[in-house]
Amino acid sequence: MTSSLETKRFDYLRLKKFCVEIIEKVGVSKEGAEIVGSSLVRANLRGVDSHGIQRLPIYTQRVKEGLINSRAEIRLLRDNYASVLIDGGNGFGQIVAHKAMQECVNRALKYGVGVAGVANSHNFGAGALVAMEALKYDMIGVVVSNAAPTLPPWGGTSLTLGTNPLAVAIPTKMEFPIVLDMATSVVARDKITLYKKMGKKIPLGWALTKDGRPTEDPQEALEGILLSIGGPKGYGLALVIDILAGVMTGAAFGKDVGMLYDMSRPSAVGNFMMAINISSFMEVDVFKERLERLCAQIKASELLPGVNEVFLPGEIEYREEQDRMKNGIPIGGDVLKDLEKLSSEYHVSL
Amino acid sequence: MTSSLETKRFDYLRLKKFCVEIIEKVGVSKEGAEIVGSSLVRANLRGVDSHGIQRLPIYTQRVKEGLINSRAEIRLLRDNYASVLIDGGNGFGQIVAHKAMQECVNRALKYGVGVAGVANSHNFGAGALVAMEALKYDMIGVVVSNAAPTLPPWGGTSLTLGTNPLAVAIPTKMEFPIVLDMATSVVARDKITLYKKMGKKIPLGWALTKDGRPTEDPQEALEGILLSIGGPKGYGLALVIDILAGVMTGAAFGKDVGMLYDMSRPSAVGNFMMAINISSFMEVDVFKERLERLCAQIKASELLPGVNEVFLPGEIEYREEQDRMKNGIPIGGDVLKDLEKLSSEYHVSL
Repeated sequence: MTSSLETKRFDYLRLKKFCVEIIEKVGVSKEGAEIVGSSLVRANLRGVDSHGIQRLPIYTQRVKEGLINSRAEIRLLRDNYASVLIDGGNGFGQIVAHKAMQECVNRALKYGVGVAGVANSHNFGAGALVAMEALKYDMIGVVVSNAAPTLPPWGGTSLTLGTNPLAVAIPTKMEFPIVLDMATSVVARDKITLYKKMGKKIPLGWALTKDGRPTEDPQEALEGILLSIGGPKGYGLALVIDILAGVMTGAAFGKDVGMLYDMSRPSAVGNFMMAINISSFMEVDVFKERLERLCAQIKASELLPGVNEVFLPGEIEYREEQDRMKNGIPIGGDVLKDLEKLSSEYHVSL
Repeated sequence: MTSSLETKRFDYLRLKKFCVEIIEKVGVSKEGAEIVGSSLVRANLRGVDSHGIQRLPIYTQRVKEGLINSRAEIRLLRDNYASVLIDGGNGFGQIVAHKAMQECVNRALKYGVGVAGVANSHNFGAGALVAMEALKYDMIGVVVSNAAPTLPPWGGTSLTLGTNPLAVAIPTKMEFPIVLDMATSVVARDKITLYKKMGKKIPLGWALTKDGRPTEDPQEALEGILLSIGGPKGYGLALVIDILAGVMTGAAFGKDVGMLYDMSRPSAVGNFMMAINISSFMEVDVFKERLERLCAQIKASELLPGVNEVFLPGEIEYREEQDRMKNGIPIGGDVLKDLEKLSSEYHVSL
């Protein structure tokens, strides 16, 4: 049977329905399942397949093992005007983060800015989609999360910090928002997982083996050391993010954050997020006009030889989304095989 | 006369007195001059010579040319509970930033977090020293600033964005705080300026020439393109920082931010900063104990071959500060020559 390895294109609404139904079957409310399903499929739409539906199998497995609580109660532990501390009850990260960003927005409506610390959560998928919640209110969303240790401190080899992503979403009057979503490693760990599933080599410069050799083998990389951006700078950023998201919130931090694929313990991930109410600083229309002028300067840049266009953060993802909404989301290889297994296990048609 | 090129060690208190007196002579209040002088000399103490006393000559020159207003009135333009917007009146960046971080702290005392946008300011020296103001209140300080365009967008060659630094200071119960202070370029522009003044080559990988060739010549680099960390990631960070610090505050942004060494116009730099009240999230002592555990994990890392120790962000600067407080700050070359010129111009002994 190699047929399931061929890449097929799936309509995103069909994929989303599939996700939502399966997540409901593992015990999540209709509303919660909508949030998780939308997050996964929208990551695929935006071309970020590493953070998309390929995660559905591990999520359901973690629910079965009791490592995600599908009926978690999300509690406000501390509430201090513009700042809140939230306990995610070990629930789906997307649902917890959605609630936390809503709290940030509510605080920012009143106080100009709102921040939330989040403890005892789980992987929330693409951080961009959490930050983008703030866009509905013409606010700027900022999200950081810690993650299981895959980065050593600069100069070391012991995996101590996560790739600890940072996402920022900024409303514009263009057809797409500015969305930066970056790991503090050269690439996100799950991008390497995806290369492995696709049977592809990774480029040199993404990772080292356990003993510090450069490698193109995704398996060696997953067992080894991810490289941080800008050397000590990426390490410093990852540390600061772990302090905000992990140390300060009561979540796990450093080596104690559980790996998504480690079935021996919950992740206990922490987040820190913020909504900035632009209208506290200037009229939103004026902000967007000024931002359009800055974006125009960028798009008008002279180009390096061989480059056809410069992109704004989030622009490539927006174009991909337009394309994939029309032409479907390509899925194949082990990812497709895993989804077919889920389909028969949960009696939900793919 | 080559004697002034020899490197001598100066007592930091003597250097600070020199700075403060000269800054007072160009019209700044005693209190303001203390802030600027402390910032410059403390940068030197911490080993960040690029952001230290070497900037005194350009600052005084800019005051003389009317490009820094030595008696600027700092005004609160908007005041919305946890968020404020400040107009720096084109004053010394250190003084404006000091006031803005104080506002952040005051808001964070009440609301859990405080943010400030700053328009019409000037280069504030080392961002670390602004962020570190929050440490006095056991808060976390976060500071970003835009800067004159020296980075092209990723794939382009037109200088559109600044190196736009990010600084974060976090209180600890160790003998030094965690302090991350990084440009979004591989190195800060003034580090290249300093290499030029010292007559040294720069390493490959720091910058390209105007037409995109790698270079070791600091002059070619200063006329060329600084490289951003993590390629598109550093560019994305620089853009987001310019949007927060420049677009949203009413400051100049993108190509319109004035270069420190361009005497034809004011800089009109913008900042965005934040103080996070740790006690809104957990007891500060508990936070510091948890942070100490994370730091212990990092310091215990196995090491790459040839590495003797891993450092926490701010640790090297702390050690340097201990050493230079005792043994003096080394100053030589053109930097010393420039200070000697200032000394005779303003009749202040060095």
